[in-house]
Amino acid sequence: MAASITKFRFVLQQRFNAFQSFRKLSNYQLCFSEFGDPNKVLSERITEVSTPLSDNDVLMKMLMSPINPSDVNTIEGTYFIKPKLPAIPGNEGVGRIMEVGSNVRGLNVGDLVIPSNTASGTWQTYRITDQENVIKLPNDIPILSAATIYVNPTSAYRMLKDFVKLVPGDVIIQNGANSGVGVSVIQLAKEWNITTINIVRDRPDINELEHYLKSLGADCVITEEFVRSHKMKDFIKLFASKPKLALNCVGGTSASELIRLIDQGGSIVTYGGMSKRPVTVPTGALIFKEVKLFGYWNTKWHSDEKNSISRLEMLADLCDLMKRNKFKPPPCELYSLDCYKEAMQKATEGFKGNKIVFSME
Amino acid sequence: MAASITKFRFVLQQRFNAFQSFRKLSNYQLCFSEFGDPNKVLSERITEVSTPLSDNDVLMKMLMSPINPSDVNTIEGTYFIKPKLPAIPGNEGVGRIMEVGSNVRGLNVGDLVIPSNTASGTWQTYRITDQENVIKLPNDIPILSAATIYVNPTSAYRMLKDFVKLVPGDVIIQNGANSGVGVSVIQLAKEWNITTINIVRDRPDINELEHYLKSLGADCVITEEFVRSHKMKDFIKLFASKPKLALNCVGGTSASELIRLIDQGGSIVTYGGMSKRPVTVPTGALIFKEVKLFGYWNTKWHSDEKNSISRLEMLADLCDLMKRNKFKPPPCELYSLDCYKEAMQKATEGFKGNKIVFSME
Repeated sequence: MAASITKFRFVLQQRFNAFQSFRKLSNYQLCFSEFGDPNKVLSERITEVSTPLSDNDVLMKMLMSPINPSDVNTIEGTYFIKPKLPAIPGNEGVGRIMEVGSNVRGLNVGDLVIPSNTASGTWQTYRITDQENVIKLPNDIPILSAATIYVNPTSAYRMLKDFVKLVPGDVIIQNGANSGVGVSVIQLAKEWNITTINIVRDRPDINELEHYLKSLGADCVITEEFVRSHKMKDFIKLFASKPKLALNCVGGTSASELIRLIDQGGSIVTYGGMSKRPVTVPTGALIFKEVKLFGYWNTKWHSDEKNSISRLEMLADLCDLMKRNKFKPPPCELYSLDCYKEAMQKATEGFKGNKIVFSME
Repeated sequence: MAASITKFRFVLQQRFNAFQSFRKLSNYQLCFSEFGDPNKVLSERITEVSTPLSDNDVLMKMLMSPINPSDVNTIEGTYFIKPKLPAIPGNEGVGRIMEVGSNVRGLNVGDLVIPSNTASGTWQTYRITDQENVIKLPNDIPILSAATIYVNPTSAYRMLKDFVKLVPGDVIIQNGANSGVGVSVIQLAKEWNITTINIVRDRPDINELEHYLKSLGADCVITEEFVRSHKMKDFIKLFASKPKLALNCVGGTSASELIRLIDQGGSIVTYGGMSKRPVTVPTGALIFKEVKLFGYWNTKWHSDEKNSISRLEMLADLCDLMKRNKFKPPPCELYSLDCYKEAMQKATEGFKGNKIVFSME
């Protein structure tokens, strides 16, 4: 981290200088030229920031950007969308505006901004982009919250809003409840008075995990093994009603249990498939139990709703919760960009424990 | 048939007589007192029609009633809804009003009526029921069309209307295309200028079946084997667009092919599971292809929409098509009620070929 700070420290002192000084800005980027193991194909490069800015462009100093599972899959080439190579990875992150072009409106130097679309290449120290491609956030939310708002919290928000009309007191169920989306679901549901049944895989530190999820607002935390046991039959009766909505990021038998536990007419929304097994639906569940199955794809939602009021309202809601400390970022470990090898090694060990986040400050 | 005609012939001559004569009406019913093989548990009984009518009741002379797969499943006890025993089977059928109670409005002697709910016990010669439990149809549609309107044509109609907004030129795909619902889908889609891709199982008389389905309006008829062959890739490109809607009554690998062939964001509606295998959905199809899965349950729809305008509009639409010969009943074989053993034997041979229909006229 020391190295990158030394490299770019002068920028922080000179951020209001004229184009001439920006011309000398060098940009530290991670990149990959072929798909493969992120521990092998990722490399660093230094480019020059190409000022002066075009009239509609803004110059952002990146501040933080997480390593999400979809970043790893993108580098591996196993994600649904494959970028043109060579590519700069990083699907989300937060930056601060350093300079704006002459036609830029509503964005000022010092503003906190996030990219307005995924696959935007956030693992670098600077970014120049059209003003259309950033969204301004309030300056008074934690940087770590801003850096991780785009992928997981918005997924959770949309899945709770767009598939079933939930009212206070309703019950939902989710597997992979400790995932980035899972913990976002727990916090939003708590805020909206929705009861959550949270399923996780059994593990040595299960009590600690249960304690953490309950501290975020989880009403109960149970293991996959418990769900499949005979105890589940009585346990599910303890709730005011059966779950109207199930969120699935696992697939396979875990998804089958959600189909079994959901209420008549309930919806099952799939946003991941960690077990690498498909979702199997008995005919009777579709016809007589009237379950409905949907998928949620965050990238697509943001692309479709790029200019919508819904998106701005959602971000305003989330920022308000973050400001009031009602929505916490996941537990993170920070790495400087030039320590990317250690960071990636840690991130690809299975996304257990802390989220790995690059810090460019 | 001769026997039953003799038994009840006098009724036809005396249908406007006073209560005293109706009191003497005897009603020939099929019934079952235990669930099991319909060839074994079904029996006949004769009861007396209990006139005088209550103020809100109507007396119907049943005219025709088909044997549907759901009737067989109901008798077997394998259907989702189990009737209280002993029960009179028959989920749909048509009758004529013979007498109305003093409070009955909008229904007159001679009107053609169908029961307004399923599991109403149509396999008998007379029925007395509240006026709320019948729907009046126009008198000028074929009796066979009226007798078979409630289960299959309405299922097809709702599945084409309620899940995807289809416009002329759109393409849909269905398996089990020669089923009762399948041939209804073909005829409605033809009328509404929707292109149908129709999948059937291979069989010795496949050319004959193809000819029949095309005579109803099928745009193409292909076999399950063809769908799984490499030829399908080019074949599907011949259509103006990919199917927006898939109708599934088979499940298993057949349903998997529908998921593979459907358009981005398309809906798969399951209304049966003839293969007795579940529907398996890859995670990527849900998330990235955005397919949606629903089930359709006709009994539930009619129960929910019992008093809705939608239901009356649908029946009016269907009757209009029937009147104009744009919607044909399935090829049928008629059996008198007292020949129920032969009829049931034929019906349980696998529902190949003609539909078996009881005629009480």
